[in-house]
Amino acid sequence: MTGVQGFFYPRTAGGSASLIPSPPWYYSGDLLTVEYRTDPARVAELLPPPLSPAPEDPGAVAIIWADWQSCSSSRAELLDPVRSQYKEAFVVVRCAFRGEVYSRCVYIWVDKDFAIARGLHQGYPKKLGSVHQTRPHPFAQAAPRLAAGGMFGATLAAADRRIAEAVLTLRSPAETNGFVNGHPMAHHRFYPGIERGAPDAFAELIRSGAAEFQGGQPWAGDVELRLFESPTEELARLTVEEIIGGYYRQVGVVWDGGSTLARLGEDEG
Amino acid sequence: MTGVQGFFYPRTAGGSASLIPSPPWYYSGDLLTVEYRTDPARVAELLPPPLSPAPEDPGAVAIIWADWQSCSSSRAELLDPVRSQYKEAFVVVRCAFRGEVYSRCVYIWVDKDFAIARGLHQGYPKKLGSVHQTRPHPFAQAAPRLAAGGMFGATLAAADRRIAEAVLTLRSPAETNGFVNGHPMAHHRFYPGIERGAPDAFAELIRSGAAEFQGGQPWAGDVELRLFESPTEELARLTVEEIIGGYYRQVGVVWDGGSTLARLGEDEG
Amino acid sequence: MTGVQGFFYPRTAGGSASLIPSPPWYYSGDLLTVEYRTDPARVAELLPPPLSPAPEDPGAVAIIWADWQSCSSSRAELLDPVRSQYKEAFVVVRCAFRGEVYSRCVYIWVDKDFAIARGLHQGYPKKLGSVHQTRPHPFAQAAPRLAAGGMFGATLAAADRRIAEAVLTLRSPAETNGFVNGHPMAHHRFYPGIERGAPDAFAELIRSGAAEFQGGQPWAGDVELRLFESPTEELARLTVEEIIGGYYRQVGVVWDGGSTLARLGEDEG
Amino acid sequence: MTGVQGFFYPRTAGGSASLIPSPPWYYSGDLLTVEYRTDPARVAELLPPPLSPAPEDPGAVAIIWADWQSCSSSRAELLDPVRSQYKEAFVVVRCAFRGEVYSRCVYIWVDKDFAIARGLHQGYPKKLGSVHQTRPHPFAQAAPRLAAGGMFGATLAAADRRIAEAVLTLRSPAETNGFVNGHPMAHHRFYPGIERGAPDAFAELIRSGAAEFQGGQPWAGDVELRLFESPTEELARLTVEEIIGGYYRQVGVVWDGGSTLARLGEDEG
Repeated sequence: MTGVQGFFYPRTAGGSASLIPSPPWYYSGDLLTVEYRTDPARVAELLPPPLSPAPEDPGAVAIIWADWQSCSSSRAELLDPVRSQYKEAFVVVRCAFRGEVYSRCVYIWVDKDFAIARGLHQGYPKKLGSVHQTRPHPFAQAAPRLAAGGMFGATLAAADRRIAEAVLTLRSPAETNGFVNGHPMAHHRFYPGIERGAPDAFAELIRSGAAEFQGGQPWAGDVELRLFESPTEELARLTVEEIIGGYYRQVGVVWDGGSTLARLGEDEG
Repeated sequence: MTGVQGFFYPRTAGGSASLIPSPPWYYSGDLLTVEYRTDPARVAELLPPPLSPAPEDPGAVAIIWADWQSCSSSRAELLDPVRSQYKEAFVVVRCAFRGEVYSRCVYIWVDKDFAIARGLHQGYPKKLGSVHQTRPHPFAQAAPRLAAGGMFGATLAAADRRIAEAVLTLRSPAETNGFVNGHPMAHHRFYPGIERGAPDAFAELIRSGAAEFQGGQPWAGDVELRLFESPTEELARLTVEEIIGGYYRQVGVVWDGGSTLARLGEDEG
Repeated sequence: MTGVQGFFYPRTAGGSASLIPSPPWYYSGDLLTVEYRTDPARVAELLPPPLSPAPEDPGAVAIIWADWQSCSSSRAELLDPVRSQYKEAFVVVRCAFRGEVYSRCVYIWVDKDFAIARGLHQGYPKKLGSVHQTRPHPFAQAAPRLAAGGMFGATLAAADRRIAEAVLTLRSPAETNGFVNGHPMAHHRFYPGIERGAPDAFAELIRSGAAEFQGGQPWAGDVELRLFESPTEELARLTVEEIIGGYYRQVGVVWDGGSTLARLGEDEG
Repeated sequence: MTGVQGFFYPRTAGGSASLIPSPPWYYSGDLLTVEYRTDPARVAELLPPPLSPAPEDPGAVAIIWADWQSCSSSRAELLDPVRSQYKEAFVVVRCAFRGEVYSRCVYIWVDKDFAIARGLHQGYPKKLGSVHQTRPHPFAQAAPRLAAGGMFGATLAAADRRIAEAVLTLRSPAETNGFVNGHPMAHHRFYPGIERGAPDAFAELIRSGAAEFQGGQPWAGDVELRLFESPTEELARLTVEEIIGGYYRQVGVVWDGGSTLARLGEDEG
């Protein structure tokens, strides 16, 4: 699309009205992760062709709360933080494609529009939600410390219904903050056809991951997770059969593009 | 994309988590329209290939506030109105393609996620905003009447900055509620390429319009419009050089698909 | 408090920063009412001295959803509708004082700050909530009509938990839109003492009601009501034992002050 | 007010629906302070009897942005952080009463209802606003560090108009994070009379301050501050004549009551 500027809608003469600027995109955030196992069939049903279940631990799920500050290369958003800060909750499973294991985000909610746009670009199926998670702070009057015993709560609501909540009590430093979201993402990106009943106008499978990643000391802990039913959500189908673990970690991330794994047409998936 | 259900993201086994269901989509709403002329060059700069300016009155602009209730064929959303109601403000110009005049939405803000999704599907460049407009009511203690002298205010803010406001004073019944948004829409739909610096992975020009339209008695009136600068918006470039008119009208609309006017590649626009 | 201007906080030299201006206050709105009976003991426990239960039908409760536009005498708020429009859900019971029957609002949620302030002034125990109700519209594509069969939904959420929802199906015109909220209000107004553990610094029982009231044709209908538990709400204690009726009515109201029924000290109530 | 439980509205049988529980109240937060001088007459006009201007530097003003997490003694709110977290922007001046210098908050905006309620109890004239400030983070991809050169932005909007913004660039560790908010508060608490045109039903001057305070290393820096006009605010009257300084500090606070300095009647102020 030539003649106008801007990475995403709206494209204009100047390019400054675009909801998001071009990558790279930068993120500093706090991640609270709950990993658990569900019925592997409930994961498999969420994997469209050409994906298949992960060969090992196919029922593993991660639900991750993230409290983010983000910006583009200009860093302009940081000084106008309504354009920089957002909260996010996302649900990740694993899958396989051409012999490799990938992570895949199946559900994700954020509370800002620029976060929806960056997500859709990366194949994250973003919707708006109300997301909250306890923040650590050096002063403990009204905050947990990043130390054994520190307690963190996390909640997610959408369309005025609470759909998930978790409580994590830190126990000890850990090697990682989970494994389910530890692979590059394999996401579908698509645009429904504009004509009534038409197949997708565009569909592809992409691979995407961080260009840079820095993480602080991960903490592991005991965690409770509750999922609630909603007529507009299917998260509760991923029933919590067995908790694997809970984790906390502060991270810095740069995202700077992905790659196409497969173009998809009506007959290919 | 086979194997999962749902019109838009996220596609799942059940299809009920999809942010929006399939068309047709139904709307009942109140429209407050301000039409004015700006420098035709400021409109032309917003028209990417293969579009060109409208042959007549190329500088005509409409900014339209809409207070909507909406639903899908199931009408389920009406009884859970957080999923049905939203407010919208959008800016429309006209253009030409292959000898026909089209309308084109260049900027648009809504306050719900399902409205963003339906918009992106139709090529409306949606962002989130805070939109308000005075509502008429049979009891005048705190409401205007749809009658001569009735005064309606409308405001739009985005990223914590007010970017437009209008005051409309109804004067008399009118034939129409404006002309700028009176043609089928010619919109670009695109998906940026996933690889760093890549061209768009998908781009097309579509034609889109209501499958059904019912409107009440239009009212015309005197109107003031103010546009404000913002680092994240370019609306104020469409300076108000000459007011054409202000209008109010209640409508019922059904949208049920559009059609592709042209597929676009890097070399075609 | 002399020397500064303004009806409520903040009082200033100019008076224009005050969250609300002086009465009279004007309202145009749509009311969806559900009346039901609960255990009279659950109503009685909400009536502090010097109130006692209503002599007849002491277990009657109304939960009322209201979609309001409001303003002060200047009507300035109407043209800046972010300052005028709000949604409200409130729960009313009846009580008795000195031989007269009064209505009393025991719980109430709104979504704007000026509505909290006007409420606190009138002794309504206001909190913030997310409130939605279906709106009627002349065009039925995505709206019910104010006619037999018209279906209206109403929902209430607070602190990211849905706490009430109702569905009303209109059946026929009716004489009234309920009786529970039909009396002047008997409300307590109080200010907790500032010292640690101190009794209230101020407390009084007031009588309050509309200075003017206009209502359209009431409609009665079949209604379902569901109340949900929340750790921050006690609404669900008013269990729905028997539905009395559901109603819809459009109204215009003016409020212009109340009167003190009794000043209260630590020993008087 | 006997017979029902709860610190604030609504008082009920159980006490758990009360918008706020009893003090003590606990806070952990990040404060960004801008101190400047305005015309002393603009401060004096905001000081009602029995207050008078501070004897020294009577035109000094602080505007403080705060990113808080808060809770009551039960700490329950921390694990349901929608009930715990809020952002705040407040404007403080100094004054004198009976020979002592006090701080006084003249304007304050928050984004949660429990914060409004705790504020009103302490005589803070709270309104709702949209408040944002850059957060420091150990990972600098999208965050400043608490170190020389770290840049922090802060913004405040109310009723869909941006009314203040600041940019602070840290320069060096400092002794304090300002002086204007360094005294106990002298606040008026009042309840307007319920009858039309009546004087206040209750008014008193209170003294209030932290029961406990812990602060991290203050940082001083260069700061820009812009105030904008709004028909519903008078903040812009406190024009920025001379910047005194900008500061950043993380703090932990406990508030556990204040004391009455003077009861006020119509004739006393």
